[in-house]
Amino acid sequence: MAKNLTQQLIEQHLVSGKMHPGEAVKLKIDQTLCQDATGTMVMLEFEALGFPRVKTELSAQYVDHNLIQADFKNADDHLFLRSASRKWGIWFSRPGNGISHAVHMACFGVPGKTLLGSDSHTCAGGAMGMLAMGAGGLQVALAMAGLPFSLVMPEVVGVEVTGKLPPWVSAKDVILEMLRRYDVKGGVNKVFEYYGPGLDNLTAMDRHVIANMGQEMGATASVFPADEKVRAFLRQQGREEDFVELKAEEGAQYDQREQIDLSKLEPMIACPSSPGKVVTVREVAGKPIYQSYIGSSANPGLRDFVIPAKMVEGKKIPEDISLDINPTSRQLLEEISRTGDLNSLLQAGARLHQTGCNGCIGMGQAPASGRISLRTVPRNFPGRSGTKEDQVYLCSPETATASALAGKITDPRDMDMDYPAFTEPEKLDDMRPLMLGPQDTSNEIPVELEKGPNIQPLPDFEPLSEQLSGPILLKAGDNVSTDEILPAGTDILPLRSNIPAISHFTFSRIDEDFYQRAKKHGGDCFVIGGDNYGQGSSREHAAIAPRYLGVRAVIAVSMARIHRRNLINFGIVPLLFKQAADLARLNQDDQLEFEDLPSQLQNGNTVQVKLANGKTLEVIHNMSDEEVATVIAGGLINEVRKEAGG
Amino acid sequence: MAKNLTQQLIEQHLVSGKMHPGEAVKLKIDQTLCQDATGTMVMLEFEALGFPRVKTELSAQYVDHNLIQADFKNADDHLFLRSASRKWGIWFSRPGNGISHAVHMACFGVPGKTLLGSDSHTCAGGAMGMLAMGAGGLQVALAMAGLPFSLVMPEVVGVEVTGKLPPWVSAKDVILEMLRRYDVKGGVNKVFEYYGPGLDNLTAMDRHVIANMGQEMGATASVFPADEKVRAFLRQQGREEDFVELKAEEGAQYDQREQIDLSKLEPMIACPSSPGKVVTVREVAGKPIYQSYIGSSANPGLRDFVIPAKMVEGKKIPEDISLDINPTSRQLLEEISRTGDLNSLLQAGARLHQTGCNGCIGMGQAPASGRISLRTVPRNFPGRSGTKEDQVYLCSPETATASALAGKITDPRDMDMDYPAFTEPEKLDDMRPLMLGPQDTSNEIPVELEKGPNIQPLPDFEPLSEQLSGPILLKAGDNVSTDEILPAGTDILPLRSNIPAISHFTFSRIDEDFYQRAKKHGGDCFVIGGDNYGQGSSREHAAIAPRYLGVRAVIAVSMARIHRRNLINFGIVPLLFKQAADLARLNQDDQLEFEDLPSQLQNGNTVQVKLANGKTLEVIHNMSDEEVATVIAGGLINEVRKEAGG
Repeated sequence: MAKNLTQQLIEQHLVSGKMHPGEAVKLKIDQTLCQDATGTMVMLEFEALGFPRVKTELSAQYVDHNLIQADFKNADDHLFLRSASRKWGIWFSRPGNGISHAVHMACFGVPGKTLLGSDSHTCAGGAMGMLAMGAGGLQVALAMAGLPFSLVMPEVVGVEVTGKLPPWVSAKDVILEMLRRYDVKGGVNKVFEYYGPGLDNLTAMDRHVIANMGQEMGATASVFPADEKVRAFLRQQGREEDFVELKAEEGAQYDQREQIDLSKLEPMIACPSSPGKVVTVREVAGKPIYQSYIGSSANPGLRDFVIPAKMVEGKKIPEDISLDINPTSRQLLEEISRTGDLNSLLQAGARLHQTGCNGCIGMGQAPASGRISLRTVPRNFPGRSGTKEDQVYLCSPETATASALAGKITDPRDMDMDYPAFTEPEKLDDMRPLMLGPQDTSNEIPVELEKGPNIQPLPDFEPLSEQLSGPILLKAGDNVSTDEILPAGTDILPLRSNIPAISHFTFSRIDEDFYQRAKKHGGDCFVIGGDNYGQGSSREHAAIAPRYLGVRAVIAVSMARIHRRNLINFGIVPLLFKQAADLARLNQDDQLEFEDLPSQLQNGNTVQVKLANGKTLEVIHNMSDEEVATVIAGGLINEVRKEAGG
Repeated sequence: MAKNLTQQLIEQHLVSGKMHPGEAVKLKIDQTLCQDATGTMVMLEFEALGFPRVKTELSAQYVDHNLIQADFKNADDHLFLRSASRKWGIWFSRPGNGISHAVHMACFGVPGKTLLGSDSHTCAGGAMGMLAMGAGGLQVALAMAGLPFSLVMPEVVGVEVTGKLPPWVSAKDVILEMLRRYDVKGGVNKVFEYYGPGLDNLTAMDRHVIANMGQEMGATASVFPADEKVRAFLRQQGREEDFVELKAEEGAQYDQREQIDLSKLEPMIACPSSPGKVVTVREVAGKPIYQSYIGSSANPGLRDFVIPAKMVEGKKIPEDISLDINPTSRQLLEEISRTGDLNSLLQAGARLHQTGCNGCIGMGQAPASGRISLRTVPRNFPGRSGTKEDQVYLCSPETATASALAGKITDPRDMDMDYPAFTEPEKLDDMRPLMLGPQDTSNEIPVELEKGPNIQPLPDFEPLSEQLSGPILLKAGDNVSTDEILPAGTDILPLRSNIPAISHFTFSRIDEDFYQRAKKHGGDCFVIGGDNYGQGSSREHAAIAPRYLGVRAVIAVSMARIHRRNLINFGIVPLLFKQAADLARLNQDDQLEFEDLPSQLQNGNTVQVKLANGKTLEVIHNMSDEEVATVIAGGLINEVRKEAGG
């Protein structure tokens, strides 16, 4: 049977399992990437697991999140990551080199390879024919050690792309249109595979925009063919020899089909506070704004900066509007400096920030109280900008720039100018000379890990006990993101390598007393969630910190893929309501009791919970046998250590 | 009698008093400047005073300190400052335009004018023949209202400059040599007036470096002649018409004389943690470093960035060294982008940060634990970098760059290369089009002040009571800076417009329990200080927050000029020990009692303090009658309000 590209990629990396949607499969991982906010924990895990060196074809560690350095913590972490990279044979990309996803694609991306990253937007690598997925840090640590990655075999949605984007409409509007159709969980356990003649009109970096925000639909991955556009991209990066042509076989089948005609699209915008609340820009045009933010992994291409530069050339941004420019990479900043586009932005009044993730993860550039911020970033979860009750809209660079010039939300088609032309340059600067490469092992000298005082070892967690009882410490609503379970931002991100310290902020964005209640209770407890619990960022701290505070099970209506797996990895039992209506039977402070929980999990998919009123509620789990074993062991580290010991 | 330039400048602005060193004089102020960290309070004060519009020739408000925006507070402050500027006829410079002192000099500096600024480095304006001084915010607010500025008539130190700087030695080494000679209080109540043939070899921006850090010697001001170098600077800024030639009269006298031969200087460096701990670079060469920091008001010139760029061209900085580039202004960033120097820095591995004060005031870029940071900034007070127990050295851009390349402290003369040539460009971009100018009053529409939730009114303070008693809540050591009385940094700076909130951090860097003790005590109390109490930054919060917590008098061995006046402005009595040995008679928690304090202050310079053991200690004050009246009224705002009401 003719295979689509996703099936080819999975088949070529299949270690075990059958390629039937919904069944567990294990895949060989060729490459891994980490960013610094999750990477310190990955390195601590890799150390705890005791492996001497990475076994992947290539692993890379980027520093792009924690760049503010309000005190010693971030700087210490950077030095720790450098020492760990040197010790274990990992590429290390220094602060200032840029955002992991774009830099990895430029320096190391190879069509046909699998890439696992401790950042949910790792999926951006699908732009060049890779099977690229985000995962919890511990799974990335295991992949670095050469162990296969387990996932549920996804359904493949074939998205046929036709037509050509009209002026002022760009790749961001394509993925916003997809989000309008699928919302934030329509992509769960799916891979979106794009094909068709319209792709000839989308560059590799345009596809990066679309693949990146596939994550926002909850998708496992997004996959594009490796075609002439990918070859051109690799040529520009001085790596044409890494090109391999890849595409779906003639007559390939898809589990589901979707169609998108680029010529019919118009500028779209996601309203506060969900990437799925998409409307046309015209529907919200005219609202006064405070800020337009250009940058992030969701719009990292050169065109995403050059088009705004050409739009503002010779004009002035009103002085009460903040036009914030966040360069993707050293390469991009060098290029816009060389071409004069940087000066067009500066002369119009834009603020240039350091290269990196910055405001996208709440590291600065928070908007003023009650004011609207337009951003080209992938997410607008409540408070993620750093400002409580923020009003962040997601849109294209064209819409953000037109709005900055006008001081209000503006459809760029309503500007009185021609759509600027952009041509990709033939060549861009190679960033690899500014990275530390894996050391030659023949000449290896022992490297000491440099651990500053904020870098604390991972806590030990005990196995799942037979009897489990305790209160429901929190009942949360629908679509609770990992940003709400464990926020980012300038104060909290620097604590990522210190679980006791960061645990103070658990659920703080939705329930300021959670930490105090958990410490006061001091024992086993539970959390109840609604639909799509744990969407968003891959941060495993959203599992580790609750576990550290005593959370032993989460019962939700549904769960996001990466977070569900992070719960298992750290010994929290992920349970699901049989029907959404059961949610109403549980309330905060209710006592729950599980009897013989390990055997219940091992013997089928239903679990009985005793309620305080003496009644019993039946819930379900969807864990594989392996996952059940992991959660019973108290998490993956206990399990791997035990295997190594035995 | 022939007058030196300082005397001419003072005489031309003298409102009252005699020009005898040590006597109080009042001066007309032509121009004022504020930055945002002190400016929000200045604007709240200007509002509290009730004036309808500024009466200076020119007032300007810059946004250069609080640029990180971890949450809504900084952004709200920026909008508040813009609204206040519009309301009262003040130039408003948006975030991203750059550091107040350099931008003011470029856009508005005029030889012969007086400039008062709510930032201690306002003195940098002396580089172009201005009498430029830092002051507490309230005094700047009063100057904005057209009221004269009171100060003690300074002694004038005539510094004859001869010779020419050798290769690899630059203006920073000149002022470091002066600091080696005078230390951090050798300039108190002095103006350093530079003259002589050596000045032909120092550009206006070189002089800015020297004038800026005159503040670190405690000087009232530094003054340079307005000569052909100043004309060239104004021509470059497109303002040659503002040039006026100014110099000391033939045969002018000075109160004291100093001599500096540029040709004899070598690279100098100030060791942790005082700008006065100056040694030659060679004395500390070889120590491994973590960071080199280029930028700040102490090295803001184009050459200070171009020379480092030429030094690193074609080379790579080791990946464990952070070379942090902090552009001074939009103008400078545009210029180094245009010339390719920016790309030389980026290609060597430097990190480019946003334009502004940044790490100099602890807004990011904190060094790693226990690691050395080399900075071209003016100050290295303990913990100012954001890292407790930091090791910050102050040096020239040449020394910082040579050290970054080598990974250790390095005398730039030991590099194997020729000293790069630098020529000032004929023209630079005009920054004024990106500022909001004072509105045309004829066409004025009422402007509402935009106050976010963090912007709180100034607390009211009651007049000085007859009987005053309470405990010594803190006994501090020598050279306590305002950075230690009320720290800056990413967490605290955003609270500058909210006294109740910021008061939590009073003395937190040297005594973590101070706030708790003050709240527990809940009444009048005292602080004891050593030599040079209150040196450093002009932040009046270092007076307002202690006053808010009940501090009614400070007794010290000696006090820094700006802080002493800030104490008076907010009703804290500044007292001095008769002899340093008396310090030993007082200890933390001792009860002190003052009887009839107002009359004691009015009737001479001695004040009796009853000690807990029944004995009496005689201390002194050096306040003018006017200052005594202010402190008795409970501060300047009470006084001005009363005058306005009566």
